[in-house]
Amino acid sequence: MEPLLRSWRLPALRGRRHGSRPGQGAAGGARRRLLLLSQLFQPLNLKASGEAAGDGRAGEPTCRSQKLMLQGGLIHPASPGCYHYLPPAVRAMEKLVRVVDEEMEAVAGQKLNMPSLSSAELWRASGRWDHMGPELFRLVDRHSKGYCLGPTHEEAVTELVAAQSNLSYKQLPLRLYQVTRKFRDEPKPRFGLLRSREFYMKDMYTFDASEEAARQSYDLVCGAYRSLFDRLGLPVVRVRAATGSIGGTESHEFQLPADIGEDRLALCPAGHFAANVEMLNGEQTSCPTCREKLIQTRGIEVGHTFYLGTKYSSVSNAVFYSPENKPQLLEMGCYGLGITRILAASIEVLSTEDSIRWPSLIAPYQLCFVPPKRGSKEEEEEGAVLLERLYDHLAEALPHLAGDSVLDDRTQLTIGKRLKDANKLGYPYVVVAGKRVCEDPPVFEVWDQNAGDVFFLTKEGVTELLSKVQIP
Amino acid sequence: MEPLLRSWRLPALRGRRHGSRPGQGAAGGARRRLLLLSQLFQPLNLKASGEAAGDGRAGEPTCRSQKLMLQGGLIHPASPGCYHYLPPAVRAMEKLVRVVDEEMEAVAGQKLNMPSLSSAELWRASGRWDHMGPELFRLVDRHSKGYCLGPTHEEAVTELVAAQSNLSYKQLPLRLYQVTRKFRDEPKPRFGLLRSREFYMKDMYTFDASEEAARQSYDLVCGAYRSLFDRLGLPVVRVRAATGSIGGTESHEFQLPADIGEDRLALCPAGHFAANVEMLNGEQTSCPTCREKLIQTRGIEVGHTFYLGTKYSSVSNAVFYSPENKPQLLEMGCYGLGITRILAASIEVLSTEDSIRWPSLIAPYQLCFVPPKRGSKEEEEEGAVLLERLYDHLAEALPHLAGDSVLDDRTQLTIGKRLKDANKLGYPYVVVAGKRVCEDPPVFEVWDQNAGDVFFLTKEGVTELLSKVQIP
Repeated sequence: MEPLLRSWRLPALRGRRHGSRPGQGAAGGARRRLLLLSQLFQPLNLKASGEAAGDGRAGEPTCRSQKLMLQGGLIHPASPGCYHYLPPAVRAMEKLVRVVDEEMEAVAGQKLNMPSLSSAELWRASGRWDHMGPELFRLVDRHSKGYCLGPTHEEAVTELVAAQSNLSYKQLPLRLYQVTRKFRDEPKPRFGLLRSREFYMKDMYTFDASEEAARQSYDLVCGAYRSLFDRLGLPVVRVRAATGSIGGTESHEFQLPADIGEDRLALCPAGHFAANVEMLNGEQTSCPTCREKLIQTRGIEVGHTFYLGTKYSSVSNAVFYSPENKPQLLEMGCYGLGITRILAASIEVLSTEDSIRWPSLIAPYQLCFVPPKRGSKEEEEEGAVLLERLYDHLAEALPHLAGDSVLDDRTQLTIGKRLKDANKLGYPYVVVAGKRVCEDPPVFEVWDQNAGDVFFLTKEGVTELLSKVQIP
Repeated sequence: MEPLLRSWRLPALRGRRHGSRPGQGAAGGARRRLLLLSQLFQPLNLKASGEAAGDGRAGEPTCRSQKLMLQGGLIHPASPGCYHYLPPAVRAMEKLVRVVDEEMEAVAGQKLNMPSLSSAELWRASGRWDHMGPELFRLVDRHSKGYCLGPTHEEAVTELVAAQSNLSYKQLPLRLYQVTRKFRDEPKPRFGLLRSREFYMKDMYTFDASEEAARQSYDLVCGAYRSLFDRLGLPVVRVRAATGSIGGTESHEFQLPADIGEDRLALCPAGHFAANVEMLNGEQTSCPTCREKLIQTRGIEVGHTFYLGTKYSSVSNAVFYSPENKPQLLEMGCYGLGITRILAASIEVLSTEDSIRWPSLIAPYQLCFVPPKRGSKEEEEEGAVLLERLYDHLAEALPHLAGDSVLDDRTQLTIGKRLKDANKLGYPYVVVAGKRVCEDPPVFEVWDQNAGDVFFLTKEGVTELLSKVQIP
């Protein structure tokens, strides 16, 4: 059996790339792993100039997040609007999904998973088979039965709930959600994960006994969205929006202000009014409540909520039984979050032109360790071993960080060169065994890249600094 | 804002269904939740007779796991071979995926995520566009470009790796995997999740520098599969198998013996030989090594591994650079695990005719609490409150169990009736506030349903018994 290269702790530092220390078997429960950057499947292209990296398709418009995600080995184009999510992007996405799960659980959300293949009949019944037009990917199976690939699942979930006989008012509210791959045949897929044809969405559907209760569900889920974006540190604004192809009587978008955004927003500077400009009446330029002049900005839509009423429940006859044991139509709401879009939108607004920045909570790796250059004075004086001891100490004191750390083992490069790459890749923290590692006790250089600070700290100081780091 | 019903701890027991104790907000980090059975979206149909529950489509063949999963509110049919996974099934699947992730990480697997839409060109280049025939779901986009919905991803991953310029021998082995939804237009979808048209699969692809190294990867991944099935307590056997539409020169299936299985296996009773009968030479009836008579059995294929050699790398010209800096074709292997199929196959072989049994590690909920019947002597003597205190104690001592517990709050039913349902649903442990809860100190009745044991234990005894329970 071959040794498990990527599960070693710092093997490269000890000059035994093909050495004998096996990885910690998963069954044993030990989870300590310091991943080696040289072994990660994260094809970097950090030397690319600031100009159009795009997908390699000349002339295609690009944006900051697309360029940085391609350069940083986070995504790779497969076909127009379809991307491979590479390992660091999957790590970030899984962290984001865990945070979203927490917020959905906090509003009593129950997670299910509905098929992508959705029958044409179901969509014909709601009228959306025609209404959705060419945005719907359509296909037939071997028996010539028609299907679409679900862009959302109002029809499917309503049919599912309608199939539950004897649903009682006592079982309401019912708040069901999923995090699955969605499909939309965009006329112009572009901007990487911001407008793609295949993407991950969190979609929740709520079922209530009355309009009043449904509006409480609506407010509660909007509150969960606010909480999510607060935890991510994203300055998202909620704006009034059109109901579009989903339908219903009321709708809000959660917009992340950004120049590249495809939506135009009108915001009252005093916070009394916020809407997508599509909602404005004609030449409306001032706030309807305080008459302040509205500020226009652009935004990336990262969430969208709809108060649906009985639009779908009336089609499927989705009912519950009242205290008087009478069947009544369920009042519904639906609520989307663009999971992969949030990843890209975060990078879009938090990064600089050439350096990725993540919301700390969902960075693929929290920590990057940079040992001394091969043959340097610090290496001769055991700088690498001292860095390994620091990692061991951290893994003991803050075990949740142990598996969230990368070692930049490209020791043929100077510390400066590797620090520059770490800056571009945006690890929240970089720990360097620099010149002062030879002091007694050793002093490490720690970069807090989101704050832009650098600290010189002993082992204990590093531990204290990192004790605040959360991993979902 | 509405109170968060499902986040309460035992509200029903205290008669405040619409009371005022809010749930523990996720942002606060507290994760204690005792879920109320009456509020779970798990449409039960436990009274159904043993006869064909099927999908409601008359005359369709059914099997134990399909019947039990429908009755137990784990799945709901959407269209032929496509199922909604309901909340308890999603919980089990997410646990299984975590265990699989651990095993894949232990063999240095790196997780990525490839699109479902896969271009026709890519499949034409490998020859599989024609070879796969009607099993491939095909569609065209708005620009009339052809795609299939990936049943596996050999072409896509090879193209991805081929696109990495200057891949060095130092970066090998490369072991990439994903857990995603796959599509296969089965001629006869049946047996619920055992043969469906849309399903979850874990697929790993390995890239090595030589045939020898690739065979080491192959053995290592097979070892990880063995470890997985050992941890699940499933008696899976590895058999030699045909390479089929995937191709390559060597292949093994991981088969779970079961009468309902679609594969026929020939096993040497002394363990020297195991093969799918499709691999036998003509009338071969005895073991080629020890001449013992081969035993025939049926199996459900839960995993399949292929040694591919350069079949796909030669099509995409996927190369690495040798120590002499010469480009050489990568040696590949591919490895599938049927994630949703493992859920159903586990239930198929572990359950009785009318009672679900799970591998303990992946049961949707580890614990079910059964409080006294409304109006009973035990209720009057505070049995429910004592059960709540037990839960609090457990949540403190064994916090990982806190969110994995359900309260059967249908207190209009007798304890006996609810115990019967708990038996059918297969919680590994059921904790009952029965007659002896009124003793001092209170004694609880604990059913270990997988072992078939019942214990009468104090709070401390329950804690000790449950301390061995693992949650991935």
